[in-house]
Formats: sequence, C-alpha cells, structure tokens
Amino acid sequence: MMNTAKQRIEALRGALKQEGIDFYIVPTADFHNSEYVDGYFKVREFLSGFTGSNGTLVVSAGEAGLWTDGRYFVQAERELAGSDITLYRMGEEGVPTIQEYLKKNVSDGQTIGFDGRVISASFGKKLEKAFEGRNVSMVYERDIVDTLWTDRPAIPASRVWAVPEDLCGETAAQKLARVREKMKAENAAHLLVSKLDDIMWLYNIRANDVACNPVALSYTFISMEEAVLFIQKDALTDEMRGYFRDNNIVCREYAELPGFLEECAVCGKIWCAESDVSYLLYRLVTKRGGVIGKDSPIGLLKAVKNPVELENIRKYYLLDSAALTKFLFWMKKNAGKMQLDEYSAAKKLDGMRAEIDGFIELSFDTISAYGANAAMMHYEATAEDKAEIKAEGFYLVDSGGQYRGATTDVTRTIALGPVTDEMKKHFTKTACGMLRLADAKFLYGCTGRNVDIMARLPLWECYIDYKCGTGHGIGYILNVHEGPQSIRWKYVADIGETLLEQGMIVSDEPGVYIEGSHGIRTENVLEVVNEVKNGDGQFMGFRHLTYVPIDLDAIDTSYMEASDIRKLNDYHAQVYEKLAPYFEGEELEQLKAATRAV
Amino acid sequence: MMNTAKQRIEALRGALKQEGIDFYIVPTADFHNSEYVDGYFKVREFLSGFTGSNGTLVVSAGEAGLWTDGRYFVQAERELAGSDITLYRMGEEGVPTIQEYLKKNVSDGQTIGFDGRVISASFGKKLEKAFEGRNVSMVYERDIVDTLWTDRPAIPASRVWAVPEDLCGETAAQKLARVREKMKAENAAHLLVSKLDDIMWLYNIRANDVACNPVALSYTFISMEEAVLFIQKDALTDEMRGYFRDNNIVCREYAELPGFLEECAVCGKIWCAESDVSYLLYRLVTKRGGVIGKDSPIGLLKAVKNPVELENIRKYYLLDSAALTKFLFWMKKNAGKMQLDEYSAAKKLDGMRAEIDGFIELSFDTISAYGANAAMMHYEATAEDKAEIKAEGFYLVDSGGQYRGATTDVTRTIALGPVTDEMKKHFTKTACGMLRLADAKFLYGCTGRNVDIMARLPLWECYIDYKCGTGHGIGYILNVHEGPQSIRWKYVADIGETLLEQGMIVSDEPGVYIEGSHGIRTENVLEVVNEVKNGDGQFMGFRHLTYVPIDLDAIDTSYMEASDIRKLNDYHAQVYEKLAPYFEGEELEQLKAATRAV
Repeated sequence: MMNTAKQRIEALRGALKQEGIDFYIVPTADFHNSEYVDGYFKVREFLSGFTGSNGTLVVSAGEAGLWTDGRYFVQAERELAGSDITLYRMGEEGVPTIQEYLKKNVSDGQTIGFDGRVISASFGKKLEKAFEGRNVSMVYERDIVDTLWTDRPAIPASRVWAVPEDLCGETAAQKLARVREKMKAENAAHLLVSKLDDIMWLYNIRANDVACNPVALSYTFISMEEAVLFIQKDALTDEMRGYFRDNNIVCREYAELPGFLEECAVCGKIWCAESDVSYLLYRLVTKRGGVIGKDSPIGLLKAVKNPVELENIRKYYLLDSAALTKFLFWMKKNAGKMQLDEYSAAKKLDGMRAEIDGFIELSFDTISAYGANAAMMHYEATAEDKAEIKAEGFYLVDSGGQYRGATTDVTRTIALGPVTDEMKKHFTKTACGMLRLADAKFLYGCTGRNVDIMARLPLWECYIDYKCGTGHGIGYILNVHEGPQSIRWKYVADIGETLLEQGMIVSDEPGVYIEGSHGIRTENVLEVVNEVKNGDGQFMGFRHLTYVPIDLDAIDTSYMEASDIRKLNDYHAQVYEKLAPYFEGEELEQLKAATRAV
Repeated sequence: MMNTAKQRIEALRGALKQEGIDFYIVPTADFHNSEYVDGYFKVREFLSGFTGSNGTLVVSAGEAGLWTDGRYFVQAERELAGSDITLYRMGEEGVPTIQEYLKKNVSDGQTIGFDGRVISASFGKKLEKAFEGRNVSMVYERDIVDTLWTDRPAIPASRVWAVPEDLCGETAAQKLARVREKMKAENAAHLLVSKLDDIMWLYNIRANDVACNPVALSYTFISMEEAVLFIQKDALTDEMRGYFRDNNIVCREYAELPGFLEECAVCGKIWCAESDVSYLLYRLVTKRGGVIGKDSPIGLLKAVKNPVELENIRKYYLLDSAALTKFLFWMKKNAGKMQLDEYSAAKKLDGMRAEIDGFIELSFDTISAYGANAAMMHYEATAEDKAEIKAEGFYLVDSGGQYRGATTDVTRTIALGPVTDEMKKHFTKTACGMLRLADAKFLYGCTGRNVDIMARLPLWECYIDYKCGTGHGIGYILNVHEGPQSIRWKYVADIGETLLEQGMIVSDEPGVYIEGSHGIRTENVLEVVNEVKNGDGQFMGFRHLTYVPIDLDAIDTSYMEASDIRKLNDYHAQVYEKLAPYFEGEELEQLKAATRAV
C-alpha cells in the first residue's frame, strides 16, 4: 500500500503543475493566526501526516520539506516515515529557514504559491523582500489543496452568544466610541480587524470556533458611521441577529470580506495592523490606498480590564484557586498510594474545575508533567504517552479555565516525596522570584522590561535562566495569552513596549528547567494597581489574583532573604484567609498546614 | 547710563534689519554641542547679561525673550533687570517653548535667523517642520553678532598633545580600521565626526579647549583611504604635526570644513550622526547626497574600554578614592571646629586631588553642597554665594578629576553631626540601592533599563524617586558624561538602548532630594564584567572602581536586608584592603573605623 502522505503530495504536485506553481507553502494557521487551529485548517497535517502543533510544509516537484521545532523532532521523524518528506529541524546548526531555502532553490521565472489567507502579512512581506528585484512570482489567492481534500472537515461555526452587560461592564457602543476616538487620533477613516479576540471584546460576543479560545471566526470593518461584522450565518441565532441589529452592527457573511474590501467605499486611510492580518487581506487593503500598519488600538483597550471585569476576575480566580488547591492536596495524599499518571491526574483536575459554577471550558490543555517531563516547557501527556506518577520528585501542573467571568491561568509545582537539596534550592529561588515581582513597587512609565529582573534575579544569581518571558497578559473570557503588555527582559531594537497600567493583569511565572532532571514553575496572575501618587509620580504595584499555597515541603528558608520569608508568610496568610471559606474538615486542616508561617 | 544689554540688543536689531532677519535665535552652545562653552561662544551672555549655563535668547523688532530652566529663574530675573528682556520660565505652565513662540509670532513672509554652527541639526529640523508649508525663510549661514562684539574673546586653541601608546592601548590606525569596518557595514563611503571626544578618542589626542573636557576644537572627515582632521594651526606644535603625518592623518585648518564639504569628492553615502552635528553641517552634507543620520559608530567603540585603559582606570580610581576619603575624614574632624563653607571645602578637596601624580584638571566643577543646598542636583557654590558648614546635618560632595590614565566621578554624602531618623532612612536606602545595583547579576542582552530598578527599588518602596538617571558612561581622560550606555528606567518609544558590555564603565548614583531639607547621593563608578557563560547565556555583573567608605554614622541597619548588610560589609572590607596602603597613623585608624563591619 502506498504511503498516504506520498499519495497526497503527488496529487498536490499534479494540481501545482496545472496552476503553474513551482513551490507551495503550507503553514499551520487559520485565517486569523489563532493560537490553535481547527480541523478545517489542518492542511499541513492532511498532506504530511505530521500532527504536531507547529510545522510548515514546502512542496516542489523535486522535494517536500517539513520545518518544525525541537519539541517535535522525534514525533515528526516517526510520523513522516515512508513519506519521502525531508525533515528540517528548525534552530539546528546548518538548517536553513524557509526563506533561506526558498531563496536558494527558487529560480528566476518560477512561481511561489500559498493560500494568502493563512500566511501572515509579515511573512508575506518578508518573502517579497527576499525576492526583491528577482523575476519570481507569488500566487496567493487560492487554496490549491481544497479540491484534493474530499473529506475535509467543515469550517467551524459554533453558536455565538452575547456577554450580558452585567458581565462585561461596557456596551459595544461605548467600546466602539473609544475605538473611533483612537482612529481619529491616527487619522484613520476605517479600521479592519482580523484578530478574533479583539472582535469578541469589541462586540461583547463569544463562541467556540477555536479550541480553548471562546471566539467566532469573523472580521470587522469599522468606519466612523458604520461597523460591519463578517461572520458565518450558521453561527447566528435570531436572538443574536437582533442583538447586532440593536447595536447597529451590520452583519455580512464571513466569506464576503475579500469582495467587500475590493468594492467598499473608502474615504481615507485604512488602519490594518500588519501584525494581525493575513497577507491576502493586507494586499487587498493596500490596493485600496493608504494603510496604517501599526497595532490596532483594541489590544490596549482590551488589556485594561474595567471594574466589572476585575470584580469577576477576582471572584473566579478564588474559585479556581480553591479547586487547584484541593487537587494538589489530593495529589499529595494519593501519589504512590494509587495508580496515577500524568494524563489521569490532568483529567482529575479538569473534572474538578468543570464543577465550578460558570465553567465553560479549559483555557488551554492542562500541562501535567512529572519528573524530567516537567523540564519540557510545552510538554503534553496524552492517553497513550504519559509517565506514571510516584511518591517522589516534583510534579508540575499548569492549567486554567474559561468561566462566565474570567479566564484563569496558574502553575504550581509540588513535591510528591523526597527531593534533592538542589531541587529545593531551585524551587525556593523560583518562589522568591515570583513573590519579589509581585511585591515590586514601580513608577508609572515602566514596562514589563523594567520589572522582569525582580523575578529573575534570584535565579540569575545562581547563573540559571528560564528561556521564556516572565509574564503575559490574560483575556477576559478570552484567550489565555493576550497582549500587548508582557514581562520580558531582552532588549530588541525597534520593538515597542507597553506601559503597565492599572487594571491590566499579567502572569508572573519564573521557573527552572533542568533537562533530563526536573522542571519547576510557580505562576500567579497579578493585577496591576495604582498606589501612592506624589510629586515623584504615580507609584504602582501588583496584587495577587491567584491564591494557591506554595509547597512548603520544597521550601528551604536558608535560600531566602528575611524579606522573602516575610513575603511568603504574608502570601500564605492571605491564601488561608481567602480560601478557608471554601474548605472544611480535613482539607481545612491541610490548608492551615500548607499556609503556616515558616 | 543705558543698560548694556539694551544697547547690545538695539545694535543687534539694527544688524538684523540690514540683513532682513525678523527673528534671531541665540542658544548657549559651541560648534560641537559641548557640555560647557568657552568665552568665545558666550554670545547669549554677551547680548543679555545673563550668565547661567543654560538659556536661549530670541530677538525680534518687538521683543527680546530669554528662555531658561528652573535652576536659573532667580538669577535670570536679577541679571535681566533693566534690559527689557522678557524671561520665559521653561517648564512652567502656560510658558511656550521656543518653537511654539516662533510658530505663533513669525508671520508669513518673515525670516528666522541663527548661526547654523551653534544650532543642532535636530533643533533646526524641528524648526523646518514647524514651518513646513509656510512662507517663512531660514537664514543660518552667518554669525550676525560677530561684527557687533568688538572685544570678543579669541576662539580657544590650546596645545594638542598625543596620548602615548602605553596609555591608550590602541593606535589611531587600529581605531580607524575598526571605524572603517563599521562604515562598510553601513555602506557609508564617508564619516563626518563633529563630536569632540569622539575625535580625541579616535586619534589618541587631547587638549584643553573646553572647560573640564580635555578636547580640541576639531572635525574629522573619514573616507576609506583618507582621514582629514580639521584643527586650528595654532593648536599644533611641530611634534604634533609629525605625529599626524606619521599616522596618515591629513590636517587642515579648522574653519575650512564648510568649504571642504562643498567641494570634496564624494563617492557614496556620508554618515553624519544627526544627534551630533550642527544644522549648518547637516545641510551642507545633505546637499552632497545620501546621508546616514544614525549615531556615529565611535560612541560604542569608545565606551568599551580596552585592557590598558581599564588598568589605568582601576589605578587612578584608587588614588582618587584615597584623596576623597582623606578629605571626608578631614571634613568630619573639622566641621564646627573651624570656619568652613561650601566653597572653601571644595577648594580644599580640589587641592588634595591636584596633588595626585598625573592630575590634569577637574573633570567637572566640584559640587560641594551643605544642608538644603544638596537637594538641588546641580548646585554650585561660588566664592560669593555659599553656605557655612556646621557640625550637623548632611554634606554632599560630587567631584572628579582628569588624570593621565582616567577620568573620575564620585559622590559621597556624610553626616557632620546629628541627623534625623528620616535622614538616616533616606541615606541607608540610597546606600542599599547603590550596592544592590553594583551586586546585580544579569544576562548579556540587558541594557541599563533592565537593571535600573535594582538601585531604585529601596526608594520606590518608600514612594521616593530621584528625577534623573541612575548612571552614565564616563570617558577615558575625556568627558565625564559619555554615552551611549546609560542606566535609566523610563521607557521612551523609538529611543534606542545600548547593551551593557564587558569593559564599559558606568556610574551608579541613586539619591534622595528633599527640597528645602536635605540631599543625599552616593555614587560609585562600576566596571561591567563578564562572569559565567553557560547554556543559559553569558552572565554578567559589575565590579566597583570607587573605594570610598559609606558613612556609617548615617547608616541605620534596621532599614536593611541581611544581604544589604552583607554587601555593605563586603564593600567596606574591600575599601579597607584597597585603601590601607595609602593611609597611615591616625588616618589609618579612621579608615579602619569607617570600614568596620556592622
């Protein structure tokens, strides 16, 4: 029997020949560059058989190559076996990037093709630049694979629902007015938005078209007088149609946007964030005249939570914290006493979270990692591939939920039995970093880069770093990763930074990842708050939203400053005070012990 | 008798009328935007009678206005009395900036004039922008005041000397080769340099044309084959002429540069840092074709000190530290016992520094400030205007020297008698900040913005800030303020930052400034060093260059972390070890006591 991938790539080659395309690029993306892609968009997987979450396929008459990152080298090798697809291990020495590969292999007179709806504007523009001055064409207006993929899943079109006003705190009309002010300030006549969580926030709607992200596939085109929402008919109930009518939002069919952009009346510059839109849309908009490519104004408006949102967030973070704490107690009690593995543990926690009133879905797939597996930052245990959990070493769990009033994200690492002194040191330094950042005072005008060192210094003093940011923003009943603010250290020229503002929420998640040995991450979510304002400026700080004990079994106070110990005890006193109402009996005793002063 | 300023401004008005100029701008600057200006360049002072270090005069037929900052409001009012010059208090509410003033008052058809050699390219370009699309001319090719100022001082032309190779560690030819590499990387055929310390560094020369800055008025124009130095004939001995000949550096007369720029052969883009050159030069260069406006490559090359420079710097910082320490002991001993004022104290210290072998001059005028005067960051006591020093409160001294092997900068604040608990708290928190920054570990890739919070946090936790940067670079037998690295916190969009690199030196100078009460600053100079390099990156840190006791009489350990106390004791142990060889008898005992562990 012939390899399926081989057959499909041969079929694609036939289609490419007919279309006159020499190199065809298939990334892993939907039309909105969402963090997760639904079945309909898994074209690369359909063609290659490789199921990882990140990978790009490039097919020409002579070769098919798949680019993926270090997380997937082993899996890709296994899944690509027999397909004749070359695996390009991204980041390894001597491995070309896709642009380098194309630059070298595409000859003058040849044509590069891709579906311009799933390639980002920035990647497309880089390609243009790479072939500047050369006789190489780009064809991007068609999805060549669609006709070959006979049993392609339908495009998702889940039911859209409106967030009630008492949950969102600001009407769509009020939000539109604020967006239009920003448009005026930039001298923009129109704003095209493709980022799904931006659209959901703006219109106070949610759906379920992307895993873990409560969003609907949609676009919106806003002018000073009109707001047009491009959304699938099938996704709307009559009630929702009424909602949009009442809010003066004109609905048009999702697929009509490109045609609309070619024909609509344009009365000035179109604002269309280069970082958010597809190459196809960017080209269409560019054809219509002046384009403002800078980040859409919605990101920052959405990032600053309003009082109603904050109140709900505080409430749900407590409920979520209580559920996680109970799960961690359960793990401590049962590890080594019953059959437990990473996957079943995750399912247990997911079930406990699902019982919280207002729970919608998980905000991301639970990372449940035992021992050395926790050293892999993006580890995911599956029903087939998982480690057994024993009464020793560290267990790391990074998880969160979508609720009717919050999106949560929290990580704890716990000792399930004996851990080495080095592990305790790493755990303690991580906890100090998390607490020090949470306790930092700073002036308005600071960005995440100013304060990142607070979380990192205890580790940097041990010559250890974690190779990721310290923190990210979090949506409100939306994506668990949200910008534009972040807490990172590295200076990158020409990359703008976002000031920390009251009402933003950010994660605070330092960690230690020792390959082959152990992984530690302690993550709280923090609220940014204003404190004293005086002649020296507006002083600011953070407030914890997460209240889950930090495992004292893995703390060694000899690695802490007196102030670190005070911060830990203060935090635990708050944890006890906030969580006690949700605990009783033996669990309350456990809570008391877990939050005792050290 | 008619007011001199009035007469001079009337004479200027006559000249302006003849030239057809309606508004004439006179800033306070030399042709190189140096930090200090020599007599020849004090045109604004000549016209207005105002002697402050910062001020710009704008003269029209109807009005003469002087813009200056808060440091000089009182002085300017006094010095401008009777002149009919309007004082514009910069920064006060409702006071227009010069651009706003001109935009409002200059009518279409009118002409703005200034000497284009003393107006920066960036200010000139801002003016252009302000009058874009309007019928307003700019005349900038002549110094209108020159003919009116009959007893104008001569342009300074001090003797130029060559820094011997064993002092500078790298020949001019080697430096030129490195500069040319950077030019190639930017595709620049020529580099025009106007920044005096850049030119001095490049050619290993020094002079004395600007107070406290050992520089010669000069320009240089570098091509791949040729390096032309524009310098005053009078400044060169035959020996120096030989030096330049031997190093293949072509000397031309200083004043010939504009003519040269109009006629020289141009074979590609000219690199000419917009931030460094005058408006006149920028316009001349622009006329000759492509211009690269970004910062000159010399700044970064100069900032990273070579091993020979570092060795000398370490040696002279010790000698300088010993002199300052002895002065501080003398102050402690004599305050209240003899007639002492801020000015005489500064003279005493200046004299002690002058005795160090290799001393050239002060690197800036000593700031000697007692009591509430220390709350003014740029306070300068004079023979006429000074405070008496008593045996109570704080005395702050910020000073430094130019040596044949270093430029130093150091600040200490000492208690001369009783100080309040609040003052002790402020002093202790300042010391903690200085020591914490000095002790910070960070990864290569950090800039000063990443680490600034280390110095500031102890104060921010008390809701106190100092309204200046934490640190600046320092030259080598050159300007005491040197870029491009700095340690600052505030995020400014579109302003580039410089990575901290091994071999850079930076000041570390947190402080507390309570208006009308007291001022505290503790400033060490630090060397940036590489530490461990591992899979997580190149870890870095600082090493002290300054070894002067921190006054234990003003330290209250109850405001310190255990680690702060350890850092202080470690620092003092080093101070004792390094300084003891320069001390004996009673002073050695004092040193021992001043550096005791607490």
